[in-house]
Amino acid sequence: MDLWYTEKQTENMGLSLKVKSLLHRETTPYQELAVLDTVQYGRMLVLDGMVQTTEKDEYVYHEMITHVALYTHPNPRRVAVVGGGDGGAVREILKHPSIEKVVLAEIDEAVIEAARRYLPSISSALDDPRVDIMVGDGIAHIKTRRDAYDIVFVDSTEPVGAAVGLFSRDFYQAIHEALTEDGILVAQTESPYVNASLIEKSFGHIRSIFPVSRLYLACVPTYPTGLWSFSLGSKKYDPLQVDFKARQAVPTVYYNPDVHRAAFALPNFVRDLIGEEAAR
Amino acid sequence: MDLWYTEKQTENMGLSLKVKSLLHRETTPYQELAVLDTVQYGRMLVLDGMVQTTEKDEYVYHEMITHVALYTHPNPRRVAVVGGGDGGAVREILKHPSIEKVVLAEIDEAVIEAARRYLPSISSALDDPRVDIMVGDGIAHIKTRRDAYDIVFVDSTEPVGAAVGLFSRDFYQAIHEALTEDGILVAQTESPYVNASLIEKSFGHIRSIFPVSRLYLACVPTYPTGLWSFSLGSKKYDPLQVDFKARQAVPTVYYNPDVHRAAFALPNFVRDLIGEEAAR
Repeated sequence: MDLWYTEKQTENMGLSLKVKSLLHRETTPYQELAVLDTVQYGRMLVLDGMVQTTEKDEYVYHEMITHVALYTHPNPRRVAVVGGGDGGAVREILKHPSIEKVVLAEIDEAVIEAARRYLPSISSALDDPRVDIMVGDGIAHIKTRRDAYDIVFVDSTEPVGAAVGLFSRDFYQAIHEALTEDGILVAQTESPYVNASLIEKSFGHIRSIFPVSRLYLACVPTYPTGLWSFSLGSKKYDPLQVDFKARQAVPTVYYNPDVHRAAFALPNFVRDLIGEEAAR
Repeated sequence: MDLWYTEKQTENMGLSLKVKSLLHRETTPYQELAVLDTVQYGRMLVLDGMVQTTEKDEYVYHEMITHVALYTHPNPRRVAVVGGGDGGAVREILKHPSIEKVVLAEIDEAVIEAARRYLPSISSALDDPRVDIMVGDGIAHIKTRRDAYDIVFVDSTEPVGAAVGLFSRDFYQAIHEALTEDGILVAQTESPYVNASLIEKSFGHIRSIFPVSRLYLACVPTYPTGLWSFSLGSKKYDPLQVDFKARQAVPTVYYNPDVHRAAFALPNFVRDLIGEEAAR
């Protein structure tokens, strides 16, 4: 007997994966959490029926949400991750030797526990002494901080339930205040194919708050439509003006300086979406 | 009642789409052909159970298989498409005013007929007077030509059945001979995630035959893993040295000069796959 799991990525499309076993399932105070072992992508964390990360393709998302800003900032020392309880972003951040402290603000402790137990290759860095795990509301945490972080990463779930506020103008404004004077914000902002209006809105907020704002893309196999967007707001540094020669290379599977630059080359329909002039 | 179609993209994963109706289904001499109307992606051509093209995302593949070489060659006049019976590549090629003739060598007439009938937005250019439709074996056609084409596009199905020969060294060598002295070959070469050995082999052949060879990528939502590769072999011109200012822009949804350049920025694991030094 073959067991299959289908994520309904939209009302009208799904990703179907053959499942070796259901390793874990619980209803947390915030969401339904499951860990499946799939043949194609290895172990997979599913929250409220949506694939968050898999062992086999997680590096694309985790490298791309982190290293772009980590290289854009010349000396990132203190950073925060809002969401990201699986630990993948934290693992990538800690590859940079300048990092002194990573605050992980995850609302759902069960996500951290499941990642520790079932996804060790992703959560491996959570025990690093530079990591402060703060279980609680990331929005509330950010609102108590001033001039505290060089980079804030919003590594959120889809904009439903507890995550809705993570895409709001208020939150981006609070991040602006929590950042140092040359700080950077990066937020995952979903797929340009199926979440166009979210990107338009979220990136629009960021553009209205930060002097430098850029949208960039990566291709994540297990996310709806594969094409995934990240919105970056920066007080000073431009991600298109990075001096890679001045920086130590970190070991990566997907990211490199060429991929960094290429990620900002937007297809015409994405440029149209955010109101940039198309390079036709 | 909801009707769903699931393409088994590999033995262990599938793309599931809600279906409005099955518009057409036949067994041709070469394959099983179906046209489905899906809610997410509009009408969709399926050959032997594999999605070939959909109305809503076809532009990514068709723009990226064609315009990269069409801009790399300074004056493309005569080109051939092997496969590509849906007409999408032909439609893009004809946007370039220098084009005098497009030979479409499609082995299965039923694909052309189904595209004409059910996918008019894709097949619209097939009646253009510059198009010669040759129903038959593309390999045999190419082998009869010398110094005939400025560009040959191999717009094939997956490497099974009749399409196996389209990924062989012999065929790429025959294309080399069918090309003019400054000609270019572009072949679709599948996903680096699930067809790594095919890319290694096919791109290796092309590299051994052409003085300039480059792999490039695009993100196609309905293809397995989303990340899709194209292998380019060129006798003279380098796709990284294109003078876009000297050329007229063509209307596109995905492609533009920045996307052209960015498509050649390969993730480290793809560089490793084709034996290029990773830019770490």
